[in-house]
Amino acid sequence: MKHFFKALTVALISLLLTCVVMSDAMAQQTLSDVKKNRGLNDEDVLAAAKTFMPRGGRDEYFAFVGSGNSGTMIVYGLPSMRIYKYVGVFSPEPWQGYGFDDESTLMLKKGSLDNTLLKYGDMRFPALSETGGKYDGKYLFYSDGANSRIALLGLDDFETKQVLMHPLFINAFPGVAVSQGTEFVFQTSEFPTPWDHREANVIADYETKFKSGITAWKFEDTDEAAGSGHHIGRMIKEASFTLELPPFVLDFFDAGKLESNGLLIGLASYQNQNYVYVYDYLKAQNLQMYTENDFAVVPFKEAVNAGAIALIPLDQAAKSVKVDPSGKYFITAANTAQVFDFVKVKNALAQKTFSFSNVLGAPQINPADVLHGELNLGSKVIDLAFDYRPNVVYASVYDDQKLVRWNYETLAVEQSLDLSFKPGHLMTPQGNSIEPHSNYLTVVNKEGVYENAINTGPTRPGYQHLIDISSDKMRDIYTMSIPQANIYGSVSVLRTTIKPIIRYPLGTNTRTGEISRFKTVAGQEKIEREGNRVHIFGTLIRSHITPEIVEVEEGDVVTFHLTNLERAEDETHGFTVSTYGVHGSFEPGKTASLTFTADRAGVFPYYCTEFCSALHLEMEGILLIRPKGYVVTEEDLKEEVLTAEQLAEYKKNYEDKIQVINETQDVINSVVTFLKENDYAKYPYVEALVVDALDQMELAKTAKANYERYAAEGKWKDAFLWAEQYWQYQVKTADVGLRAKKLLSEQINK
Amino acid sequence: MKHFFKALTVALISLLLTCVVMSDAMAQQTLSDVKKNRGLNDEDVLAAAKTFMPRGGRDEYFAFVGSGNSGTMIVYGLPSMRIYKYVGVFSPEPWQGYGFDDESTLMLKKGSLDNTLLKYGDMRFPALSETGGKYDGKYLFYSDGANSRIALLGLDDFETKQVLMHPLFINAFPGVAVSQGTEFVFQTSEFPTPWDHREANVIADYETKFKSGITAWKFEDTDEAAGSGHHIGRMIKEASFTLELPPFVLDFFDAGKLESNGLLIGLASYQNQNYVYVYDYLKAQNLQMYTENDFAVVPFKEAVNAGAIALIPLDQAAKSVKVDPSGKYFITAANTAQVFDFVKVKNALAQKTFSFSNVLGAPQINPADVLHGELNLGSKVIDLAFDYRPNVVYASVYDDQKLVRWNYETLAVEQSLDLSFKPGHLMTPQGNSIEPHSNYLTVVNKEGVYENAINTGPTRPGYQHLIDISSDKMRDIYTMSIPQANIYGSVSVLRTTIKPIIRYPLGTNTRTGEISRFKTVAGQEKIEREGNRVHIFGTLIRSHITPEIVEVEEGDVVTFHLTNLERAEDETHGFTVSTYGVHGSFEPGKTASLTFTADRAGVFPYYCTEFCSALHLEMEGILLIRPKGYVVTEEDLKEEVLTAEQLAEYKKNYEDKIQVINETQDVINSVVTFLKENDYAKYPYVEALVVDALDQMELAKTAKANYERYAAEGKWKDAFLWAEQYWQYQVKTADVGLRAKKLLSEQINK
Repeated sequence: MKHFFKALTVALISLLLTCVVMSDAMAQQTLSDVKKNRGLNDEDVLAAAKTFMPRGGRDEYFAFVGSGNSGTMIVYGLPSMRIYKYVGVFSPEPWQGYGFDDESTLMLKKGSLDNTLLKYGDMRFPALSETGGKYDGKYLFYSDGANSRIALLGLDDFETKQVLMHPLFINAFPGVAVSQGTEFVFQTSEFPTPWDHREANVIADYETKFKSGITAWKFEDTDEAAGSGHHIGRMIKEASFTLELPPFVLDFFDAGKLESNGLLIGLASYQNQNYVYVYDYLKAQNLQMYTENDFAVVPFKEAVNAGAIALIPLDQAAKSVKVDPSGKYFITAANTAQVFDFVKVKNALAQKTFSFSNVLGAPQINPADVLHGELNLGSKVIDLAFDYRPNVVYASVYDDQKLVRWNYETLAVEQSLDLSFKPGHLMTPQGNSIEPHSNYLTVVNKEGVYENAINTGPTRPGYQHLIDISSDKMRDIYTMSIPQANIYGSVSVLRTTIKPIIRYPLGTNTRTGEISRFKTVAGQEKIEREGNRVHIFGTLIRSHITPEIVEVEEGDVVTFHLTNLERAEDETHGFTVSTYGVHGSFEPGKTASLTFTADRAGVFPYYCTEFCSALHLEMEGILLIRPKGYVVTEEDLKEEVLTAEQLAEYKKNYEDKIQVINETQDVINSVVTFLKENDYAKYPYVEALVVDALDQMELAKTAKANYERYAAEGKWKDAFLWAEQYWQYQVKTADVGLRAKKLLSEQINK
Repeated sequence: MKHFFKALTVALISLLLTCVVMSDAMAQQTLSDVKKNRGLNDEDVLAAAKTFMPRGGRDEYFAFVGSGNSGTMIVYGLPSMRIYKYVGVFSPEPWQGYGFDDESTLMLKKGSLDNTLLKYGDMRFPALSETGGKYDGKYLFYSDGANSRIALLGLDDFETKQVLMHPLFINAFPGVAVSQGTEFVFQTSEFPTPWDHREANVIADYETKFKSGITAWKFEDTDEAAGSGHHIGRMIKEASFTLELPPFVLDFFDAGKLESNGLLIGLASYQNQNYVYVYDYLKAQNLQMYTENDFAVVPFKEAVNAGAIALIPLDQAAKSVKVDPSGKYFITAANTAQVFDFVKVKNALAQKTFSFSNVLGAPQINPADVLHGELNLGSKVIDLAFDYRPNVVYASVYDDQKLVRWNYETLAVEQSLDLSFKPGHLMTPQGNSIEPHSNYLTVVNKEGVYENAINTGPTRPGYQHLIDISSDKMRDIYTMSIPQANIYGSVSVLRTTIKPIIRYPLGTNTRTGEISRFKTVAGQEKIEREGNRVHIFGTLIRSHITPEIVEVEEGDVVTFHLTNLERAEDETHGFTVSTYGVHGSFEPGKTASLTFTADRAGVFPYYCTEFCSALHLEMEGILLIRPKGYVVTEEDLKEEVLTAEQLAEYKKNYEDKIQVINETQDVINSVVTFLKENDYAKYPYVEALVVDALDQMELAKTAKANYERYAAEGKWKDAFLWAEQYWQYQVKTADVGLRAKKLLSEQINK
């Protein structure tokens, strides 16, 4: 009775919430009921249907966010807007062991000053690699504005592959752009600083010692390592160069494409004047350079003389500047947006129709000479984005809280959409390539807390809105919170353009793409000692960490070199040692190393930290750290002695397990028969599963030999444990085999 | 023409993607078109409508995830499943400056061994604070399994308030439970280890030196600091105690409630036998204790003699054990789930009807004496969750890929739902309180990659499914990816139960809840030096960092103590110094300190890293690090000299700005008139906005005095800059005032 009253109370509370009911009769099982209960109108339901991802559905696009000051890449999907991944780029990330394992730490330290480990980054405008102006889905680049670093991510495995610190800048604009063949990745300074990294008087020396610059990082792609799907492109510091500039504050920039390929345009300001700079980097790369801090520099005067750099003064400050998909125009994001004609700009550069009336000897082009036209869009235009409709561009207008779709050829507004928030950066799928799509537009919600945001305490999440632009009428159809980010620009590519790998070749150092010299295969696990240096070469596979016991001495420097032997899909293991704060993430095939000083004696469990199967908890071992100078006694070496009763129990357990093994084998045999009879090898995905299954059985052989041997010797505990291990392999084989059978049946029925 | 063909090509590509169209006529603007184009059926649309969050909508519940090995708390909403926040708990988090600023670093170091900064944690089963068995929305607790730490989070601001390292355990079960009044927070060991933290022989000493334990951390809540909404409850180590246990491996546990309040039940195993332990902690707290490593310990034998601890042997291994909402039963999550009756268990404890036939002197209760009944549910039952229906419980069955709703009083299955994945942990809103709700159930997708997961490389996101349980028929209605997590249990509370604050009292150290001694108000910014120690007392407010230039010497140890002066909602500033890797997040009112050694001379920009307004980029300053031993010259002290032309330009800028200021003031005056005429003070939220607006104008007074003084002196640059600053305050005032006016109009029209 008491329970009934409690239920009633709860029900009353729930009714207040408008959407809890007690039986199917009252349930919201018709659309009209749900609409009524949740206060949705027809537009809402349409928006819901446009963004809802049914179970097992795949998003059309991957989007990569400029996450601001977390130093982490965020990946989400369009149109579901669901967030798929956070990937450490400029800051350590414990889940993936990024900046924890030796390999990623070495990479991060190489990309820091003085071999320290920088723990923070500010990354706002990523760029995707391009081939012929189209996204190729292979790489992604980020600039760290706070610390003047640049990073390369591989989209085959969504991992950071390279981090470089700029040898001259102290501070960079937190965005990048690529040339249309990704020959170069561009990065500029933001606030000018002295390049010798030494003191300078802020006021008196400003115009002489403070500099700005534009760097063209040379990028070289490679063919993928044979059959691995693993790309190993790299930025080559020795082949890169920086254009020296007077102390301009530099802002957003973009690279030309198609007919404007070879030019970089960007925003600059000096004192109270704003400019667009035009930079012919193909011309600049052939000029005489000098070297500073081992880095090639093109002197400003050389570039001016060669017609490789010029400024176009702007009437208004612009927040962004973008090259259109045809490469014919570039447009400033300003209250009165200005459309400039690249043909005219190229002529001006070629003919050096400069004036030098203004600051610091910088050549200036008369805007009237190169302007196509302009259009007033409202108050505080933040960003621009293009779609595939000819000459159509979208603008976000901050103060006016609206989106404007306009034609930059005819200079006419086509449609305006009022928003419930102040809009920031924009993105269309494929938007910075020569092939933007026209279905979706994302807009960053820069301010709108009173109306839009749930209260999560003094700091709120960022919000990204999804706008449906597929028709003449734009519609705001989804609001997604993007936590742990101060969102700026995003880039987005067709999901199917990216070809992520499923596993690494066994023993891969995932940062270099090479086979690690610490690769360890099953049966070859070992512990090597030299003085106080201990190397453990171990393996991870369901459901064992080998070795299971490691003994070292207090003060030893210990490295666990671990290889994940799995070939199965999504079969990642983690590894931590209690209280030592080390952590690694080991995807199938990956080898990584974890080094620490065993400076406290005691018993420290280590275990797998990633749920890998229902037997996950069995992936456990013990690190025994003996006190300094400990002498091993006979007692320490004593073996476990089982009572007759215990032995009998293990024997029974063993016999029971053997029966289960035989039953499981029957299942496997029937699956194998089915697969063979139906030519499984004709279906690549099915075949891949079968290879995985057979791989498991191959590993199982040792386990079988062991349990048979121990059983013959009457060592029933060991026999039982190995039979258990064998059965685990078997279950995995059966499981994968059944998936293969299911898939094959589906293929046949098609 | 070329452009047209390109557009056509793109359109053709897009058509292949099935959902891009070129005009409104062809647009998917009817529900039936959208369903057809996106392959949705009626069930999908219903699911979409049940989970879609319309613009500005609020989720019904906050959910907090046991995120596994990232060391970070994840907050999401039900039913939208959108992720709102990642909050650093056991590992540093750069976005929030957690483990970066001195305050949070000190807190983390206090909770680590040897004052080091542990960077990793493993947290799987959080618990919400309770009052009378109901969630009170004030605190959240996490256990770090890897490093045996426990953490307290305040839900007034969603920040971590306390981290403690266990003085005895090396490794803990990664879950917690609370007593129904949150008098105690419970944490247990997982793998047994020696408590003296020294070596022990793994085999020979196991039963003598290795121990397990159950700790009751005493928790003391406080009234909120006057008017701040800020709770400052803490765990009190000196009032906490641990029950010593033989070397059991301990697993999931839960606290009794209502009639079973005072008991803790949990899973234990020793050799091949599984148990449920029953622990009467109220009885134990009065027993004789000894002290180890300054921590109170109840000897095992004392507890046994007092009838405070006993084991119930289990036939099957269980993955979880849960107390039902009435507190009458507890149920094991096993293939054959067993329902135990607390009344019978309490009798057995009171009468000490134990046997001692088994291991290590542990008293055992005969299961038959305390069992209510049992029910076979399938293969590998992982977890249980309750709703408000009397005696109804949900079970996730891993191998069978199903959810079972059953009655634990009558022991009958009510309904079963087949899933497309292997299910893991379950959660109902309010689920572990005495008032669970019955609308939603979340289920962790533990394995189902082939069918469900998008390929994001070798490591995939975790997935959480939302099940609609509001009717007799359960339905899987949404699949949400939860990145950067290896998801385990979650807890969820009504959103409205949590009362997050919007701002801190000015100068708050958010980790202690106290006013920081480094609090700095406008006009009192200063730089203090003592030897090589430099303290900067600075302020942050749109759009200035004060001071704007800081000079130190190479080798100085520098601390920026910064206070965010804002009172506005969601007006967070960030702060970083280029290449020094420091980062802080400053919510309105917060004071935090950033300490680093200025070990490289040069010019280092510092700036606000959080988008705070359209003038965000102006929040910038310069740290000038002079080389060691540098002597300041007269040249360094020289002031800027403006040309007559420049001066005239600044004068004009100033006069233009004054005109804008007058126009803005007119807007403010009209708003103020409206607010006063309509009794704004009657509406608390409107009044809060007005206070915020007036606060801005108060700050503006100094700016006005400055621009008037400089104008009088003919210093037009300074006059202009201060007029600009004044106008910024004005705009903010106008903006907040207009919001207040809008809200007030809405209130009046109601």
